Amino acid sequence: MSLDNNKMGGNGMKVYFVSDGTAITAEVFGSAMLSFFDVAVETKSVPFLTTKDQAEGLKQQINLEVQQGVALLVFYTVSDVAIRDIVQSCDCHCYNLFGDLLLPIEKALGVKAQPTAQKAHGMKEGVYDGRIDAINYALANDDGASIKNFDQADIILLGVSRSGKTPTSLYLAMQYGIKAANYPITEDDFSSPGLPKILKEHKKKLFGLTIDAQRLHEIRTGRMAASKYASARQCRYEVDEVESLYRQERIPFLNSTKLSVEEISTKVMAEMNLVRHRQ
Amino acid sequence: MSLDNNKMGGNGMKVYFVSDGTAITAEVFGSAMLSFFDVAVETKSVPFLTTKDQAEGLKQQINLEVQQGVALLVFYTVSDVAIRDIVQSCDCHCYNLFGDLLLPIEKALGVKAQPTAQKAHGMKEGVYDGRIDAINYALANDDGASIKNFDQADIILLGVSRSGKTPTSLYLAMQYGIKAANYPITEDDFSSPGLPKILKEHKKKLFGLTIDAQRLHEIRTGRMAASKYASARQCRYEVDEVESLYRQERIPFLNSTKLSVEEISTKVMAEMNLVRHRQ
Repeated sequence: MSLDNNKMGGNGMKVYFVSDGTAITAEVFGSAMLSFFDVAVETKSVPFLTTKDQAEGLKQQINLEVQQGVALLVFYTVSDVAIRDIVQSCDCHCYNLFGDLLLPIEKALGVKAQPTAQKAHGMKEGVYDGRIDAINYALANDDGASIKNFDQADIILLGVSRSGKTPTSLYLAMQYGIKAANYPITEDDFSSPGLPKILKEHKKKLFGLTIDAQRLHEIRTGRMAASKYASARQCRYEVDEVESLYRQERIPFLNSTKLSVEEISTKVMAEMNLVRHRQ
Repeated sequence: MSLDNNKMGGNGMKVYFVSDGTAITAEVFGSAMLSFFDVAVETKSVPFLTTKDQAEGLKQQINLEVQQGVALLVFYTVSDVAIRDIVQSCDCHCYNLFGDLLLPIEKALGVKAQPTAQKAHGMKEGVYDGRIDAINYALANDDGASIKNFDQADIILLGVSRSGKTPTSLYLAMQYGIKAANYPITEDDFSSPGLPKILKEHKKKLFGLTIDAQRLHEIRTGRMAASKYASARQCRYEVDEVESLYRQERIPFLNSTKLSVEEISTKVMAEMNLVRHRQ
């Protein structure tokens, strides 16, 4: 799927993600669904649709676009029956994402669904959001800034500069409430054998990132062209050294070159047996 | 839904989120689904299930748990038919999350689904992940650190210390590739009327956060107990002043007290008509 409009010619294809909450569930699920199809699709999120008036307004807009020849789909997650009925009555294909599964799950769980309880991305009442602490922790412990807090870390990410440590530590905090520190491995660390002393004490928490030297060279060139730091030779040297270090010290590691932040993070969670701290 | 186990008595209820990718789609959708039910559920993600051997291993484990009396559900998103068949044949309720919708969407789009293309949270080939830039931007422009880059901002978040600016700017970067700077409003800014000069030039990009004074007092006390900064009186003063400023200057704003980071971010996106930069 791509967001370019009009690739299909004509008036293009458009998908609405509609919700009475953040619309994140509809977006994530709908986008995954659309990734099966090799077509250009414009997407639009409509969050916080909570009144019948808003729903009628949306319906008018959608029907107008349909009349103008836009090929339209609507994916929705709406609890309120009256609002749902309005959305469902738009002049296009409308999919209630929870529709088909709620009933069989009711049976399996032996419990009735309670539509009003549904607020997947809202604040859980009475539950402190530990992610905020985890984000603050990741920020305070970015790039080896404050090694004195390593005791509190759930995980300590290692890697040479620009191998993906910071985005990964923030994603782990934001999505899972995991406290991830990160420590940059620099040329200084290669001058003496073994791990830096501060890391030895926390060996079980260490996870290494690496990256293809050529890709690292490109990324560093984007930040500091024509520097020793960005040179192909320096990148190759650092990558070779850091991978040897991981192997010698038996630190689990992965190559981030072809992975998204989501993939790196979920692989790290699985490999290190980390358990999410948020619900 | 809560992750506490055994609340139901007996051997509890468990849901597996199974995928050949990150399992994020299954997790997000499955969790939203479960939030309709007021039962305690233990959840377990099984990402990157890509071989038949792994699938058989999982099946054995699941069947064993079922025999031991665990009430089990499986939500899965798997492309490969052979692996899918193995998962589906576990001795419990198994839901193919894409199962029921793919066919009607094929019809609506007039295009055949291509299972191998499905990799919702993977790296898009040939597409640079602009989120990394956005994350770096948010970090470099956190807490008014570097106002010289405001030209590049998609949005500038305002607010008193600890009103939610940093998590929001990082979420906007991570999820939407939005470059969000943030600028802390302090007591100094209240001494002269109107907006700080640096902000005047970027008025259309400004969005304010506020928070209930009592909640702010609690949060600040957690960081710096018994300080003037955390005192109830100081918090009330700052919140009153910042809200007057927003009103006088007609800066859109919202109260973050009862909202999750996701809710704040999606409301900001909608209010400011921001368009995601990532696919």
